[in-house]
Amino acid sequence: MDKETMLNPEEALNRVVQSANLLPPRTIALRDACGLTLAEAIVAAADCPPFRRAMMDGYAVRVADAGRTLPVVGEIPAGSVWDGELAIGQCVEIMTGAPCPAGTEAVVQKERVRRRGNQATLPVSIEPEQNIAPPGSDCRAGQRILDPGATVTPLAIAAMASFGIAAVQVVPRPTLGIITTGGELAAEGRPPRQGQIRNSNGPMLRAMAQLQGIQDPRQLHAADCPELILQALESMARLDIVLLTGGVSVGTYDMVPEALIQYGAEPIFHGVKQKPGKPLLLARKNRQLIFGLPGNPLACHLGFHRYVAAAIRKASGRAAMMPRSRGELAQAMRPKGGRTHFIPGRAEYATGAPASWRVEVLPGVSSSDIFRGCRANCYIELPPGEQTLEAGSTCFFTWFDGLPWGA
Amino acid sequence: MDKETMLNPEEALNRVVQSANLLPPRTIALRDACGLTLAEAIVAAADCPPFRRAMMDGYAVRVADAGRTLPVVGEIPAGSVWDGELAIGQCVEIMTGAPCPAGTEAVVQKERVRRRGNQATLPVSIEPEQNIAPPGSDCRAGQRILDPGATVTPLAIAAMASFGIAAVQVVPRPTLGIITTGGELAAEGRPPRQGQIRNSNGPMLRAMAQLQGIQDPRQLHAADCPELILQALESMARLDIVLLTGGVSVGTYDMVPEALIQYGAEPIFHGVKQKPGKPLLLARKNRQLIFGLPGNPLACHLGFHRYVAAAIRKASGRAAMMPRSRGELAQAMRPKGGRTHFIPGRAEYATGAPASWRVEVLPGVSSSDIFRGCRANCYIELPPGEQTLEAGSTCFFTWFDGLPWGA
Repeated sequence: MDKETMLNPEEALNRVVQSANLLPPRTIALRDACGLTLAEAIVAAADCPPFRRAMMDGYAVRVADAGRTLPVVGEIPAGSVWDGELAIGQCVEIMTGAPCPAGTEAVVQKERVRRRGNQATLPVSIEPEQNIAPPGSDCRAGQRILDPGATVTPLAIAAMASFGIAAVQVVPRPTLGIITTGGELAAEGRPPRQGQIRNSNGPMLRAMAQLQGIQDPRQLHAADCPELILQALESMARLDIVLLTGGVSVGTYDMVPEALIQYGAEPIFHGVKQKPGKPLLLARKNRQLIFGLPGNPLACHLGFHRYVAAAIRKASGRAAMMPRSRGELAQAMRPKGGRTHFIPGRAEYATGAPASWRVEVLPGVSSSDIFRGCRANCYIELPPGEQTLEAGSTCFFTWFDGLPWGA
Repeated sequence: MDKETMLNPEEALNRVVQSANLLPPRTIALRDACGLTLAEAIVAAADCPPFRRAMMDGYAVRVADAGRTLPVVGEIPAGSVWDGELAIGQCVEIMTGAPCPAGTEAVVQKERVRRRGNQATLPVSIEPEQNIAPPGSDCRAGQRILDPGATVTPLAIAAMASFGIAAVQVVPRPTLGIITTGGELAAEGRPPRQGQIRNSNGPMLRAMAQLQGIQDPRQLHAADCPELILQALESMARLDIVLLTGGVSVGTYDMVPEALIQYGAEPIFHGVKQKPGKPLLLARKNRQLIFGLPGNPLACHLGFHRYVAAAIRKASGRAAMMPRSRGELAQAMRPKGGRTHFIPGRAEYATGAPASWRVEVLPGVSSSDIFRGCRANCYIELPPGEQTLEAGSTCFFTWFDGLPWGA
């Protein structure tokens, strides 16, 4: 990492997105597909509705019988079929969703018919085809209803389920491994020895992965020794994305860059002009993407929020870039000279004229301070510069994934 | 359901939120708590950092030694402790995150020290306490870091993990049951007989529940017969929320209201001045909330989106109401007289001056048409009225849950 080759945060994000690979499609059960990206076009297999469907509870009739009193010759609950053909001088009671018998010219809704025993008196005016949905009126056989790249939403699941589609080609989510490093971290579940602290990045990154739909990332801890880090990397060689935390700056004990060379990974960048998280590192081995995230919890969180999440979205076939939201600063802020500053904030919807997102800064004294920041729901983006931004001025922010709308 | 007692959509939503009960808190493992609502205050159990922490890789020194050349008497990797006391005329190499030895007055960063073998030459100016984070500087023991009601975010998990908190009191998500009704629905996995259609509401509601974090809702199908619906209800008597689909209007075969009376549920409302989904029904038995959703897929979808999701949020201790977003209509729209119209739409971020959400209407010919709507990512809310809204006019919309930002 040196100052000459450090990227600005926009270039770094672009490199991440360029370097991430779209995963090959896989066929999975429709019931497991919600939230994933379609890798195939979905075409209607049949007309929907498949038959002339009654749209109201009422009577299937011939138009010529308007105003007359007729015998009710049958009853068709939804799901049943009346096999006869409806003749002039007859009517059949029919329920919403049921198929109209042959010969039906209109369905007259129940409220407009006077029923006495087996006799029904029809209204004087009946429009041909009224209250009948013709076959294919919702969707014709052969019609393309979803394109590759579409998100499988609950509505899309309903549409596919109505054609009997039980499995679907999607882009899967990437597999993910998390390797925490650092001799200062106490073993999981053990009280820290003197000079040690507990591992907070591991549980945090696992939760962030879960919010991206990656339920069970692999997790390992490696002390600050290149051999152990290399061993952990090799055990995760088949995963799509690997995150390392800690050991990415240039201290004597920052072993991650060294281990990555031994592992055979090709460096893509090391160092981003941002605060926190300047020593962010990206490398690649074959199709595997490897992030070296800083050990400071807030810098580590920003690294996942801004960069790892974009790689996951790209790999999953989603739009990699998140649009930024616009808000109004609740208090004045000073930029950090030459670096873009990402500050945990809390955006709340302020009704007013015009209504807007009011963004409060949750200041952390250092990038290791996650305590004042843990009420945050977004990152405020403060561009480099010298001039103080006044309270009330416009700022850009990005929502924490999975927790939008001021959760 | 009659026109006199029909609620407007705002009243109906208020009734849902009033009727839903906040669930009693439960203690769960921190690793399973992401996204849930805290039911207890979290207080820092110890100072963080717990010791005087070096903030840079460098040398622990005495201020009086500025400008001098000294022997390096030790080395402290992160996680290790140097037991001696640092005397004047000595310095110790120290890594970021390591505890400063007793006697340390400042940490001088590596780059400012000339090292030759075992000798280090210090810079001429050294500020007392520079590059040292005092104990408790991130967070003091006893400081309240999270309040009841806060969402357990990944940052909150990191903060709690750093105090060794392994289990936490949260408001759980409600348990949910889904009962589809209707004789027209083919049995799961079977091709529909003549007059039948496939069940699309069941898979759709299951996916919607999953996006609310309810992984495994119970699902049953009951034909249009009050006894079978009652049986299904009784088998779900211990669940927090039960959804019924279909059978809620006033046709001869609309058996849900009848079954609910037999079940002993108290009706709260039946009928909302909205399109689609006018016959929406809400009932309660003890602490259980029961929704009768219309059988039309789009009306069923809206019913979950607008009402069931609000009940789930309330029960889970989250803010029940979702703020509406403001957008710009891509095309002209006609209101539906006396009913609020909820139309599946697609909001896309339009950069411009000012940038805004451009909302395209995805028209459905009927509330059963989910095919044109399955690219939607939001509901546009068109208030009752007579006047056409022109293209470019302001509209309100709500994002589909779990799929914000144009997914």
